[in-house]
Amino acid sequence: MSVIYERVALIGLGLIASSMAHAMRRAGVADEITGFARSAETRDVARDIGFCDRVCDSAAEAVAGADLVVLCVPVGAMGAVAAEIASALKPGATLSDVGSVKRAVIDAVAPHLPEGVHFVPAHPLAGTEHSGPSSGFAELFDNRWCLIVPQEGSDRAAVTRLESFWQALGALTDEMDADHHDLVLAVTSHAPHLIAYTMVGVADDLRRVTDSEVIKYSAAGFRDFTRIAASDPTMWRDVFLNNKDATLEILGRFTEELFALQRAIRIGDGDHLHAYFTRTRAIRRGIIEAGQDTDAPDFGRARKA
Amino acid sequence: MSVIYERVALIGLGLIASSMAHAMRRAGVADEITGFARSAETRDVARDIGFCDRVCDSAAEAVAGADLVVLCVPVGAMGAVAAEIASALKPGATLSDVGSVKRAVIDAVAPHLPEGVHFVPAHPLAGTEHSGPSSGFAELFDNRWCLIVPQEGSDRAAVTRLESFWQALGALTDEMDADHHDLVLAVTSHAPHLIAYTMVGVADDLRRVTDSEVIKYSAAGFRDFTRIAASDPTMWRDVFLNNKDATLEILGRFTEELFALQRAIRIGDGDHLHAYFTRTRAIRRGIIEAGQDTDAPDFGRARKA
Repeated sequence: MSVIYERVALIGLGLIASSMAHAMRRAGVADEITGFARSAETRDVARDIGFCDRVCDSAAEAVAGADLVVLCVPVGAMGAVAAEIASALKPGATLSDVGSVKRAVIDAVAPHLPEGVHFVPAHPLAGTEHSGPSSGFAELFDNRWCLIVPQEGSDRAAVTRLESFWQALGALTDEMDADHHDLVLAVTSHAPHLIAYTMVGVADDLRRVTDSEVIKYSAAGFRDFTRIAASDPTMWRDVFLNNKDATLEILGRFTEELFALQRAIRIGDGDHLHAYFTRTRAIRRGIIEAGQDTDAPDFGRARKA
Repeated sequence: MSVIYERVALIGLGLIASSMAHAMRRAGVADEITGFARSAETRDVARDIGFCDRVCDSAAEAVAGADLVVLCVPVGAMGAVAAEIASALKPGATLSDVGSVKRAVIDAVAPHLPEGVHFVPAHPLAGTEHSGPSSGFAELFDNRWCLIVPQEGSDRAAVTRLESFWQALGALTDEMDADHHDLVLAVTSHAPHLIAYTMVGVADDLRRVTDSEVIKYSAAGFRDFTRIAASDPTMWRDVFLNNKDATLEILGRFTEELFALQRAIRIGDGDHLHAYFTRTRAIRRGIIEAGQDTDAPDFGRARKA
């Protein structure tokens, strides 16, 4: 594959940035990858692994001369990083990010941008429950969606170039408006994460069921929740604080439905339960048909670590 | 391996029963496996696959002469099946089941049992989102727990024989009291399933986010919920109706915690969120250390069907 951006700078060197670097090398889409992380320890680990050509000791140094700069820090830190690098950005460069929330990131980043820099926010829908520079791998984005959120007046060439870049990293791309993105993600990701965190916390609190029982007998259902609830706490704190309205709206609807099902259990309305559970089965079928999961029965199957 | 029960009868021929038959053959623990299912179509499929030596046209015929009879029907059907087979059970035989709820099954089955039959309820913590006779496979129970719930006055030899049988099928076994079983499972399985069903239903209802968006962008979090929410509707209706008190108690606690986290989001209390999310991470680590899941980052990783 041919080079899409001569120099790419990654600000923040966790799971997403390190996976991007591995995937960029696999695809050969950048001549040079520079990187910066706030923590000296993270920079040292990144240097040891070597997924960047240069790990710099300041964000400004990392972005100098870069054709693409990608902010890979928690959503709550995006504004401060943008302020820090703004004056070092090369004219004509594209600035993007990988934040799970788009409206709040745009509001925080846009005011700092100098003329002549193309701001094209993006969000790759990929991740694992692991975090940090050593958790990245080149295949993370393969066959996953990356949502691109062009701004009013965005340069089309800059937008399509970023889309080609993500496609080269293995992703499928779609364009979406920021507010709609935040609502869709509240449904498909943010509310489910809060629910999983909550359920795992409840299990941990319940003294009549020991932690070791929760751990030993977590075969069916709860185990998947614990996987979700092991995601990076800082990232998720920032997601909820920055996608407050959509998340609270979805959680409100969730609680309403949950109360209706609880009531059906209490009064013994089996027909209501059966009809509800039959309907949800169809959605799963759709996801498998869309190629976003396998229907191999690995849920509950024996797996040894 | 040597034979543990000469003849084993499986009543109900879905995912669990068909997996048991495959695993019994793998282990060589039974000379003959008989089976019965209420639906003629299921019996025909089972005959085609051939995991039983004989598929019978009545439950009484299937259990005649069996040394072990295992009820593999939904929890709500156990009582009626027990009444139907009671007079055909061989003296000295063991009657067991695989229901996800134990107190209600014991209350429904025990009154029908003739003298001289050993009733040893059990619950293998294994399953997939698929159901029916063609979804079974021999490895389903490998390294999973099977909880054995001996009754007051249970014959120890009958209990340990059933434990050896499940171990031969690949499972780990533990003994537990029926009420404690129902509480533990409410936490690790029943409440999480209801929550997953609810969230998938909410997504389906939300008209501003299309079903196709929910399906396409279900990478992070929601996809695992849809897998859980694709489980068999009849089985789960019966679980909730028959483990009502424990499930409602856990859901009550869940709602309390969820409201506390929603409030933290609303007032912007990032410290509360961060502390909560950090605590839930530790449980995941425990599950991996207990060998009940892998820490390979398959959550969000590209998978093609």
